[in-house]
Amino acid sequence: MAYINVPEGVPGIRSLVLFRPETGKPLYQLAQVLLREDSPLTPAERELIAAHVSSRNNCRFCMESHAAAARCLYGTDKQIVDDVLNAPSRADLSPKMRALLHIAGKVQLSGKQVTPEDIAAAREQGASDREIHDTVLIAAAFCMFNRYVDGLASWTPTDPAVYEEMGLRMAKGYVLPKQTT
Amino acid sequence: MAYINVPEGVPGIRSLVLFRPETGKPLYQLAQVLLREDSPLTPAERELIAAHVSSRNNCRFCMESHAAAARCLYGTDKQIVDDVLNAPSRADLSPKMRALLHIAGKVQLSGKQVTPEDIAAAREQGASDREIHDTVLIAAAFCMFNRYVDGLASWTPTDPAVYEEMGLRMAKGYVLPKQTT
Repeated sequence: MAYINVPEGVPGIRSLVLFRPETGKPLYQLAQVLLREDSPLTPAERELIAAHVSSRNNCRFCMESHAAAARCLYGTDKQIVDDVLNAPSRADLSPKMRALLHIAGKVQLSGKQVTPEDIAAAREQGASDREIHDTVLIAAAFCMFNRYVDGLASWTPTDPAVYEEMGLRMAKGYVLPKQTT
Repeated sequence: MAYINVPEGVPGIRSLVLFRPETGKPLYQLAQVLLREDSPLTPAERELIAAHVSSRNNCRFCMESHAAAARCLYGTDKQIVDDVLNAPSRADLSPKMRALLHIAGKVQLSGKQVTPEDIAAAREQGASDREIHDTVLIAAAFCMFNRYVDGLASWTPTDPAVYEEMGLRMAKGYVLPKQTT
């Protein structure tokens, strides 16, 4: 049970934004702009970064839901999602995505962990300023979302089918849920 | 020098949101709603939580700027800000603020660090669901802002006068900066 009085039976961040829609609005707008709208990284790549950081933060709700969204968006290439979650160093990533995921992993620990060498290595693989920016902000944002979801002990479903359905919805975009009562 | 090509001479997050205003907009809206608009915590208390978390994340730009904003907002009681930053355990805080800052410190480490006992201790001191919610989300949000600012190595001024001026502006509210060129 969540630490605060959120709507029953609503999982994760959805329950928290129903409790406090005023903050929910910019949080969902951030997710929509950062993960779906214009970026040199595909929505699939951005969801993979989100799932990777959530996995490193041990946030099951965000990891499972964003992994499900990433699988939808990768389509026939979806195996890469589980490969990254299970053993990122052995996953069949492009050198650029490998370098960007490495930066995301550094951000998960602390912003200060990112070194000029990490950035240079990503640039050598063709990463642009925008790709580096979006990678850092996605990783930083999930250090927020993960803490919000777990810090208030919001409900984490355990049924994989729930996340599969969530992933299908999330793949279409982030829309603030509305109170139904 | 920042890792990406941001406007020169613009410090911290301001340079990053000028680089990418599409994500800057929801980030500033989040700061405005969370730190200035309706909450049972005063804007001063909320800035104190932000400065405390930024200090624990070793993010000098956010720590100095939000401490400056907190000093403006506390007015004649501003000594509490430096007391909390220097030695939170010895600062002359209300029992409720002490319990909430303790929760914020747990969130800084990981959402999962917050225990039912931490929440019960805050409730015993009169903390409401909304106060607990806002504390957790402020702490989580600064785990994002700190990583964004440091992960891209944005400019951190060292002149205290710069932060004093920033604090005065921030005390009035969060408005997305506009490109001047």
